[in-house]
Amino acid sequence: MPKVSQSYLDARRSQILDAATSCFAREGFHRATMQDIVKESGLSPGAIYNYFASKEEIIEAIAEERQSKEGLLIAEAQKLSDLTKALRRIRDAFFTPLPDPKERRRRRVGIQLWAEAQRNPKIHEIVRRGMDGPRELLSRMITEAQTGREIPKSLDPDATARLMIATFHGFVLQLDWDETVTVEPYLKVLDRCLEGLLAPAGRRGKRAGVQAYGRVGVDVSALGRRSGRRTRGSA
Amino acid sequence: MPKVSQSYLDARRSQILDAATSCFAREGFHRATMQDIVKESGLSPGAIYNYFASKEEIIEAIAEERQSKEGLLIAEAQKLSDLTKALRRIRDAFFTPLPDPKERRRRRVGIQLWAEAQRNPKIHEIVRRGMDGPRELLSRMITEAQTGREIPKSLDPDATARLMIATFHGFVLQLDWDETVTVEPYLKVLDRCLEGLLAPAGRRGKRAGVQAYGRVGVDVSALGRRSGRRTRGSA
Repeated sequence: MPKVSQSYLDARRSQILDAATSCFAREGFHRATMQDIVKESGLSPGAIYNYFASKEEIIEAIAEERQSKEGLLIAEAQKLSDLTKALRRIRDAFFTPLPDPKERRRRRVGIQLWAEAQRNPKIHEIVRRGMDGPRELLSRMITEAQTGREIPKSLDPDATARLMIATFHGFVLQLDWDETVTVEPYLKVLDRCLEGLLAPAGRRGKRAGVQAYGRVGVDVSALGRRSGRRTRGSA
Repeated sequence: MPKVSQSYLDARRSQILDAATSCFAREGFHRATMQDIVKESGLSPGAIYNYFASKEEIIEAIAEERQSKEGLLIAEAQKLSDLTKALRRIRDAFFTPLPDPKERRRRRVGIQLWAEAQRNPKIHEIVRRGMDGPRELLSRMITEAQTGREIPKSLDPDATARLMIATFHGFVLQLDWDETVTVEPYLKVLDRCLEGLLAPAGRRGKRAGVQAYGRVGVDVSALGRRSGRRTRGSA
């Protein structure tokens, strides 16, 4: 038997995962068959079954690859001393690839898995892991910044992490429904939203706008004046 | 032939829609059959086919019912003079029903439709309409508040509306993956996020926290002190 190198095996594996992603994106995870994936990959059925026994195993491999990449990335960002810098790094890593067609296909398959997770416990577990990993890392980063008094202690770390993840998943959906949507204006708003969250509480309390939102019904129209200042570096 | 009243017809129609929602939530829109819906409803097949020819028609009716309810609700909120008050009314209307099992079933089916929309143009259209309606209404409300100088003009109304909708859809997903998640802490963070967005620009520029987020890498740890003030009325 000829000996094959690890890099050859890895390349073949990744060829299969790419083919599967294309099939799932086009046919739907539900409808795509192992035969479709064989055909798309250009490999022999035997070659594919050597790696994966089922669509579920392929999806698991795709998810694991993404999740380990995301885990590394967040861990890297976590090393930055400053929370806002770290969050900016993370949001770039998630949002910047979205205009790439290959990434859109992957995210498209992700949406299918959200539905599939409702009935397939294996996929439910994969989807949960993909959410819980980043959520725990983000939550820990927020807690640490609170200990260092960088941001207000009154902020619930878990709920804040959830909101951050929701702004990403929700946007992935909107992009899937309308591929002409652009990332940049969304990121500008998201930045301002995070500014509001991370502003020190003492400062927040002094702002009329904040009080107006907290105290329902107060008319803030007399207070709103633009300074013309732009948030730097957004998007 | 016996004459039947409109209220009888309406009640029967809504009986069918409820039965269909239960079937879709349990079996998946994909797998559930018209026979399943007939069985669940307790009506005769003929009675159901009198109203709807297919699962697609049923889904369309469910979506239309929800969308007209949501449209009314946003239009009602729009009449409030103050943007923050109006947004609070809208967010309550969307988030407050989520703990109700019946509403969860409906939202669960909604997630299935997000996936289904990728391959079914009819469902894609329904899903798009459900997004575009609220998005346009929210965007118009923001534009009007900008004209009245209530909030900064630098805020992109469409992107802001998108972010608001994303925070809802993203949370619906998280609730579907883990039904123990509670709404209240999430809403508190969401409120603070909206506060940041809607604060008048002149005030925003004066806050150290804002500048720190804009200017990547500035250490804000020396600035963060809690005043102990709590945002009133959140959740």
